[in-house]
Amino acid sequence: MCKKIITAGIIVIGDELLSGRTQDTNISYIANWLSPLGIRVEEARIIKDHKDTIVRTVREFSKLFTYVFTTGGIGPTHDDITADAIARAFNLTIDIREDAVCMLKERYSYTELNQARLKMARVPKGASLIKNPVSQAPGFQVHNVFTLAGIPSIMRAMLIDVQDRLETGKKLHSIVVIAEGISEGDAALPLSIIEKSFDNITLGSYPNFNRELIGVQFVARGPDIEELNKVKLKLEDMITDLKRVGE
Amino acid sequence: MCKKIITAGIIVIGDELLSGRTQDTNISYIANWLSPLGIRVEEARIIKDHKDTIVRTVREFSKLFTYVFTTGGIGPTHDDITADAIARAFNLTIDIREDAVCMLKERYSYTELNQARLKMARVPKGASLIKNPVSQAPGFQVHNVFTLAGIPSIMRAMLIDVQDRLETGKKLHSIVVIAEGISEGDAALPLSIIEKSFDNITLGSYPNFNRELIGVQFVARGPDIEELNKVKLKLEDMITDLKRVGE
Repeated sequence: MCKKIITAGIIVIGDELLSGRTQDTNISYIANWLSPLGIRVEEARIIKDHKDTIVRTVREFSKLFTYVFTTGGIGPTHDDITADAIARAFNLTIDIREDAVCMLKERYSYTELNQARLKMARVPKGASLIKNPVSQAPGFQVHNVFTLAGIPSIMRAMLIDVQDRLETGKKLHSIVVIAEGISEGDAALPLSIIEKSFDNITLGSYPNFNRELIGVQFVARGPDIEELNKVKLKLEDMITDLKRVGE
Repeated sequence: MCKKIITAGIIVIGDELLSGRTQDTNISYIANWLSPLGIRVEEARIIKDHKDTIVRTVREFSKLFTYVFTTGGIGPTHDDITADAIARAFNLTIDIREDAVCMLKERYSYTELNQARLKMARVPKGASLIKNPVSQAPGFQVHNVFTLAGIPSIMRAMLIDVQDRLETGKKLHSIVVIAEGISEGDAALPLSIIEKSFDNITLGSYPNFNRELIGVQFVARGPDIEELNKVKLKLEDMITDLKRVGE
């Protein structure tokens, strides 16, 4: 049986990412991590630490995509409201859970485990915990939504416990052809002809504006490596032709 | 008269940002650029080069926020569909415009100005052009939506021509207090008490997980600098108290 197309949406939660204080890196990390699993990220949103916004976005993404990843807002402080928002999104109750407390006890002594830290053991009813090998406070899965930490090193470590839960899809391969001395505007017409002559590929062109405003990277993506190799030959022919005209 | 709260939404358009191939930097750049103008970014989305998705997102953001910034998809190739999508979003016709062609002529000779490059002079009817001092092909403004290039160096240069068109809002200031040797879980309770005792501030805490898992940055944001200075004193007192308990 052919593999299905499997999709994902990423929701990055945190005021600090919208104030410009922090540069998000979680989106591209998760996208790169999902790519070899054949899971395609369809959309990513950066939203505030605002309960209604989180609830609305999680509900929307959970319906739209096979999987949803949220990062951020599961720490011990007053602005960490993601767990409560996920519970609300799925109309679940939420409470401190004993197995999550056990995970916290691996790190914190009895006196350290205050009310704020115990908040990190609050998970929506029926959720499956996601292990955190860095700082113990777990993430959790509710239905198709994986709720992860916002701190990149912890988020990345949590993905290890997520991988086996994901159905893998039809893997997309990509080929890159770099053309020096070619301008995107000259390549546009032959490029669109190449794209139309293949059914299952998408073809992007990314101009190099760092030096002299000239040079393009062509990137073709698709499920069939043989087809991509044919695209590569077509692109190389196109570049040769364009260079000949330019001489 | 008091200044109003002015909001913005950012829409970053491009498959390459969702495949993980490219790390977006436009969101944090625009957010940092808007911050001193007193304009608050409420949400940012990264979406595919897909017309219906662009149309839907632009319509939604245009209603929700004072200003909307889009980046990407206004080049010469087949996957550059943003201009057409913006026209559709506002039910406008779109065509090649003479003043935009004039801008392109500053860069391209008559023979270079092929059909693909002329596409960069297609703008929705009634749009106001945005100058591009790097590569000439203009961006444009339709109602409250500013459509900019995706390439960071060009996008940044286009913002210069946008600045005078924006109404500035009540500026948010911020103070940062760095606490070494303090753990977020110990600070959570006193932190929430401080936040509750001030009306117009938001208080975030960002643990430092790079070394030894200990240390926190507290960031307070608000419109009133005197109030923020009071918050700073409270935070410093809190840190002193926490360190005393830890001894």
